[in-house]
Amino acid sequence: MMQEELNLVLAELRRSLENNNLAQAKAIIEALHPPDQADLVAGLTTPDQVALLTHLEPSDSADVLEEMEDDEAAAVAEMIPAAQLADILDEMEDDEAADVLGDLPADKAAEALREMEEPTDVIPLLRYPDDTAGGLMTQAVVTLRPHWTVGQALAELRRVGPRADSTYYLFVTSDAGMLLGVIGLRNLVTAPAKTPIAELMATDVISVPVTVDQEECARALSRHGYLALPVVDEVGHFLGVITADDLIEVTEIEATEDMYRMVGITGEERAFGPIRISILKRLPWLLVNVVTLLIAITVIDAFEPVIAGMVALAIFMPLVSGQGGNAGNQTATVIVRGIALGEIGLRDVLRTLNKELRVALVNGTVIGLGAAAVAYVWKDDWRISVAMCLAMILNFMTAASAGVLIPLSLKKMNIDPALASSVFVTSFTDTFGFLFFLGIASLLL
Amino acid sequence: MMQEELNLVLAELRRSLENNNLAQAKAIIEALHPPDQADLVAGLTTPDQVALLTHLEPSDSADVLEEMEDDEAAAVAEMIPAAQLADILDEMEDDEAADVLGDLPADKAAEALREMEEPTDVIPLLRYPDDTAGGLMTQAVVTLRPHWTVGQALAELRRVGPRADSTYYLFVTSDAGMLLGVIGLRNLVTAPAKTPIAELMATDVISVPVTVDQEECARALSRHGYLALPVVDEVGHFLGVITADDLIEVTEIEATEDMYRMVGITGEERAFGPIRISILKRLPWLLVNVVTLLIAITVIDAFEPVIAGMVALAIFMPLVSGQGGNAGNQTATVIVRGIALGEIGLRDVLRTLNKELRVALVNGTVIGLGAAAVAYVWKDDWRISVAMCLAMILNFMTAASAGVLIPLSLKKMNIDPALASSVFVTSFTDTFGFLFFLGIASLLL
Repeated sequence: MMQEELNLVLAELRRSLENNNLAQAKAIIEALHPPDQADLVAGLTTPDQVALLTHLEPSDSADVLEEMEDDEAAAVAEMIPAAQLADILDEMEDDEAADVLGDLPADKAAEALREMEEPTDVIPLLRYPDDTAGGLMTQAVVTLRPHWTVGQALAELRRVGPRADSTYYLFVTSDAGMLLGVIGLRNLVTAPAKTPIAELMATDVISVPVTVDQEECARALSRHGYLALPVVDEVGHFLGVITADDLIEVTEIEATEDMYRMVGITGEERAFGPIRISILKRLPWLLVNVVTLLIAITVIDAFEPVIAGMVALAIFMPLVSGQGGNAGNQTATVIVRGIALGEIGLRDVLRTLNKELRVALVNGTVIGLGAAAVAYVWKDDWRISVAMCLAMILNFMTAASAGVLIPLSLKKMNIDPALASSVFVTSFTDTFGFLFFLGIASLLL
Repeated sequence: MMQEELNLVLAELRRSLENNNLAQAKAIIEALHPPDQADLVAGLTTPDQVALLTHLEPSDSADVLEEMEDDEAAAVAEMIPAAQLADILDEMEDDEAADVLGDLPADKAAEALREMEEPTDVIPLLRYPDDTAGGLMTQAVVTLRPHWTVGQALAELRRVGPRADSTYYLFVTSDAGMLLGVIGLRNLVTAPAKTPIAELMATDVISVPVTVDQEECARALSRHGYLALPVVDEVGHFLGVITADDLIEVTEIEATEDMYRMVGITGEERAFGPIRISILKRLPWLLVNVVTLLIAITVIDAFEPVIAGMVALAIFMPLVSGQGGNAGNQTATVIVRGIALGEIGLRDVLRTLNKELRVALVNGTVIGLGAAAVAYVWKDDWRISVAMCLAMILNFMTAASAGVLIPLSLKKMNIDPALASSVFVTSFTDTFGFLFFLGIASLLL
């Protein structure tokens, strides 16, 4: 649904709720797809959200909560009476229900769990962090036994009548619950009824450990072109399934996080979220940047007499530092992204450094010669031009080193390599850019 | 497979090929999963790749080519004799075969198409660009008719024996090929055999037009939590299906592209790709950045007499421009990412500008006061401190405006909003930062 349409429907929904016409509000919601429903509900005040979600069928409320952002879903779930919340949670996919329960205050979560009809699927999931394989998987899947026939397997499927998409891959487990193999539902459907499952299943199953990071799950799944990925414990017991649609969202969220972190925005921030949040998420790294800039300008301060002797130097300083910052950010972006996609690891320090230094030497020389020529035409002083060219090349090498070593050092310390990389890299290129340019110039003067 | 293991196997594979022991090389490859096979083959020289791929079973070579990067696959495909290439293409998924054919020289592609057994599935796909719904979809799917029964549908599935994952959602079409509805294979399997398809199918199908960008496909699919997405033409004829696993890769590639473009790296660049490519992809925007920096430093040049009168001004200039650049990049990142995720559109200019200006006012004031205090302690001159504080606030407002308006203007002109946003934003914050600081200082002096 287009944004404009949504806005119109939202206005109508708000009017219905203002007039306490819950039946009309319910009818408006029921006519939409769940993602549109969630967008609408997100636009309401919390009391209106609670009124609406307690009035809808629990299965519809479940759809809406599943589609809402985690923190929004938890905020409204907290206001819904425990008995009604339990009915809704019973209708949700177990991984989504676990996310909501995990974000609730402990006593409210315990109360809701007590009221739930089927808490057993959800409880084990509460152990796993949201951003790991365990937090993403669903346990509501049908598993097969190797000694069954295709006919028995189909009968079991009909008996259970699974509603989840995760049943398109059927996983075969031993009596002890070990993951033995996988069969696509399409193979099951097209095989003769008497074929033993053991004969039909593929045994070289790609699986992920339950504790693995969500980014790695997305990588494994897209690498192999599967639609679902089985999750196992440390000895190989089958625990659940992650489906591809969840991992598209994971990929988007992880990329957003990296992009934000690189420029010094901590955590999530929505384009139209509260201003207070935006200020608090951005200010800390701006303050860090003040400190790094202060270090850089003490270099200029040290050369004050040189600048006093030739003010033209002050004019060209930003050219050296600005270019170095840009080149350093190019390198840091390639490295941070390469680490995130699993292409670059700690073993590759020397290899990447070697490559980036060579790129920097060429680009620094080209830019350095160009800038020197411009400076010469402008100020007609060969000393500024020579200082400019040499400082540019040296600062490009600094940029390459900082762009490679800062993200990889953060990774080595188990800190996100993207974290404020841009702030740190430019602090190096500013400081050394000023040092090289003013230092060489003072030697020549 | 871990990188270390892959390296060992690669060495073994190379030895086999050196000794012309193709049977051994074939055995090494056949023991692996396709993604690992592709990684190994990518590590060989082109002649070795050709020798190996012409010696493997066509279905194995097809798996390898499907997993390789598009340009690498095309480079090796070009060297394989047309008859053998056609055998391999026949075994590939039609969207992947179309990608390879699209990247081949026209005469080689035509020759291969002539030799193919089933070129009819592939030919229509050649019309669509790689990065649209049409370029991602497969046409090799089973469609159902509304008047069939569940039993007939299952019989048809058994008759066709589809090998692709895209058959987990079965799309229902009219005799004229219009998309009418969808049934999950699991619903088909668990329904009584006599149920009419028309009764079982969901009719509110989410579909995408064939010309739509791949990013939008990923968004539609993850928003609705589906594993496959039907593609239709402008009047609603069913054309094919996109599966979720392809869209995870799309999401990764689009995010990488945006991150690269923001810092002025054009097109794709691999961490360990050729140095020449890295230089050429990064240099153009560095040159543009030279020009934008030259504009910024003409401002300093205009204030040369002011700086000559008070060299301390030269010391504090980078603090104003550097902070403005950082704040501007924070805003630009939020806007570029918001546009990419479909959260911000052209209609939101005023709303985003309003929000970002308010964030800038607060952060600019905090940073401005802090910087002014530091400057006062350091240089004991209230004029520098006042100029610093006012210039900082004004430059934060400039940063917010540039960060919002540059990406949205690019979008308005149908240019990628990420394109060198960082370079453009900092050119504004540099220029105006110098202008505000030196201008206010010269008024006070």
